[in-house]
Amino acid sequence: MHIQYLDKIRKHNPLIHNITNLVSANFTANGLLALGASPMMAESPDEMAELAALSGALVLNLGTPSDEKVAAMLNAGAAANRANVPIVLDPVAVAASALRRNTVSKLAQNMQFSAIRGNAGELAYLAGVDWQAKGVDAGSGSADLAQIAQTVAQKLNCVAILSGEVDYIADGKQFISLHNGTTLFPKVTASGCLLSAVVGAFLAVAPRENVFQAAAEAVAVYTVAGELAAQDLSPTQSGTFAWKLLDTLAAVSAEQVAQLVHLQQGN
Amino acid sequence: MHIQYLDKIRKHNPLIHNITNLVSANFTANGLLALGASPMMAESPDEMAELAALSGALVLNLGTPSDEKVAAMLNAGAAANRANVPIVLDPVAVAASALRRNTVSKLAQNMQFSAIRGNAGELAYLAGVDWQAKGVDAGSGSADLAQIAQTVAQKLNCVAILSGEVDYIADGKQFISLHNGTTLFPKVTASGCLLSAVVGAFLAVAPRENVFQAAAEAVAVYTVAGELAAQDLSPTQSGTFAWKLLDTLAAVSAEQVAQLVHLQQGN
Amino acid sequence: MHIQYLDKIRKHNPLIHNITNLVSANFTANGLLALGASPMMAESPDEMAELAALSGALVLNLGTPSDEKVAAMLNAGAAANRANVPIVLDPVAVAASALRRNTVSKLAQNMQFSAIRGNAGELAYLAGVDWQAKGVDAGSGSADLAQIAQTVAQKLNCVAILSGEVDYIADGKQFISLHNGTTLFPKVTASGCLLSAVVGAFLAVAPRENVFQAAAEAVAVYTVAGELAAQDLSPTQSGTFAWKLLDTLAAVSAEQVAQLVHLQQGN
Repeated sequence: MHIQYLDKIRKHNPLIHNITNLVSANFTANGLLALGASPMMAESPDEMAELAALSGALVLNLGTPSDEKVAAMLNAGAAANRANVPIVLDPVAVAASALRRNTVSKLAQNMQFSAIRGNAGELAYLAGVDWQAKGVDAGSGSADLAQIAQTVAQKLNCVAILSGEVDYIADGKQFISLHNGTTLFPKVTASGCLLSAVVGAFLAVAPRENVFQAAAEAVAVYTVAGELAAQDLSPTQSGTFAWKLLDTLAAVSAEQVAQLVHLQQGN
Repeated sequence: MHIQYLDKIRKHNPLIHNITNLVSANFTANGLLALGASPMMAESPDEMAELAALSGALVLNLGTPSDEKVAAMLNAGAAANRANVPIVLDPVAVAASALRRNTVSKLAQNMQFSAIRGNAGELAYLAGVDWQAKGVDAGSGSADLAQIAQTVAQKLNCVAILSGEVDYIADGKQFISLHNGTTLFPKVTASGCLLSAVVGAFLAVAPRENVFQAAAEAVAVYTVAGELAAQDLSPTQSGTFAWKLLDTLAAVSAEQVAQLVHLQQGN
Repeated sequence: MHIQYLDKIRKHNPLIHNITNLVSANFTANGLLALGASPMMAESPDEMAELAALSGALVLNLGTPSDEKVAAMLNAGAAANRANVPIVLDPVAVAASALRRNTVSKLAQNMQFSAIRGNAGELAYLAGVDWQAKGVDAGSGSADLAQIAQTVAQKLNCVAILSGEVDYIADGKQFISLHNGTTLFPKVTASGCLLSAVVGAFLAVAPRENVFQAAAEAVAVYTVAGELAAQDLSPTQSGTFAWKLLDTLAAVSAEQVAQLVHLQQGN
């Protein structure tokens, strides 16, 4: 896998506009800075149209939804679509409440996403798969997860990224699986939210027809950086891991990622 | 003191729902993850009833109150009481404004707390003690602090936890004092908020009749972890302490806590 | 440069009230604690008047504006002016949207600031200089930046602090430039927001006629602390730098700052 967009991010510092939650805002901003992008976290509905025009990508995170955030997301999404700015959706805990389910429906009806990134449970809901009944621990195999990502990609006409121990990136026709990472990722809050923002940064510097490749690179860079950051750590050192991940996102090279990434292609 | 609930948290990963402030959200979530619990920080009034039913405990933090947060707290509290989910209140700076005083009154009238955790000034206000006139530095002895905790426990019919150099846990009849910790705790913002959330995690895995024991264990685990994390640090290293505390919350064992805890019983 | 206010902050722990954004709240609070001040982040319009009276300084940060935050800022600012509490404005990205431009106008019409701190683009907008056309990288010299700070100071009748590789502090008549810092500062989100809060802490312990001196000390302490924190770090270690900066803010002495500060006077 050739990593072609990492150096572009570091050279062009694309502005990534995140409408996100109070848990992830600081960590996401620092992660984007470490990667080489410029974060912006504005969320008033009244300035979304202006700010979308300045941005290289828009990342919508459902972590702590509110009426005002949803209004901001709708305004920002419409402006981003008009300006041909790619949109990444992170449907945090979408299945957990009617508010979240309705918000995602409303967003999907009113804008076109370039990519959606979530965990198995979140993407299973979007795919219409009864995930609770199956259960992550109930032996649902990797084929299922890839299929879930494919279904989401097909239904919402965008690239779908399913994160977990193995990550799946699907565009409705092809998919790949990436086998990097560390058990420390799920011990740091907002590490998934930051990945969604990192996907935004890669999309910002890639041609619109290369969303699949750019999304795969984003996941590769992020999970390899995590693997390197966790190298000398015990499974309990989540506090250390959080800042080492930032250091590593800034230090990792395209060559290192290309060398360390474990990738499988499917279709 | 036998620590019986720490391993239960690590085994069952209870979901702890926090309605909290923009300062503490990230640190609280990371602290709960380090401990072994699962954090959730949702705060829209519209999804509180659904989320309360999924949660092992509800933690209400008054740090940055707003109309919407108070509405969310009322909805979440009512649902938690209906579902027999324990509620922990952190009455941050309750005495500082009419908004805060009124919010705590309203919450207390509309739900039953399992525990309240605050500092001396906050609990003194709830106990009806004129704390400003006395002053923490004016020599008010330990007997007074224990009495304040007892009064709060009696008035609000719950366990009261008074945090400071010495911590007091009272249930209206008995109390204990815990003598662990470090001067670095008050140098890290939200370290009190995180303790309230940790109390929530212990309550989530304990039988309802063991709230006093579970709250005492929570304080013991947290303050011993802090003591261990601060071991090789100077009093100025608050930046280091914050992430070492997270590492230590994940690494500390029930046996270590039992060995290192300094406890006195009173009544 | 004699540093006279740092030890006063550590002795008196002034309460600094920040109305700020979801990205910077935690880091700002921890930075103020490390410095020796006491942070407060309340933002409900309903408690602003009471809290302003308790505070040593008020810091208004435009990072993520909303109707409620602006209402809170107006209430807090009016109360602070009445109580003779100094106000610091951080006009984050003021030029980026009508909402931000209008908010700063409204604040300026309704209260008197003691100091304004921002980057070159933000202060250029306030000075009425066409910054976009010029561009930071287009060779605009240090004379221009000092002039921009002077113009802001004159127009808004307060001390202006222009942050960047070189920092300028101007009061409309005199100005100084400070030449400390590290390239790691702009890699940590909210490092500018924290500096604004640090200015607030210095203003809180200084006589009202010494705002210029206090602001200069604040910038000197902060940038020297950053320089020391970055000493053994590579330019990619922004994760490490964030917590080392907190440790160093607590450890640095007035004597160290006086010795290491690089200052030039102008007029």
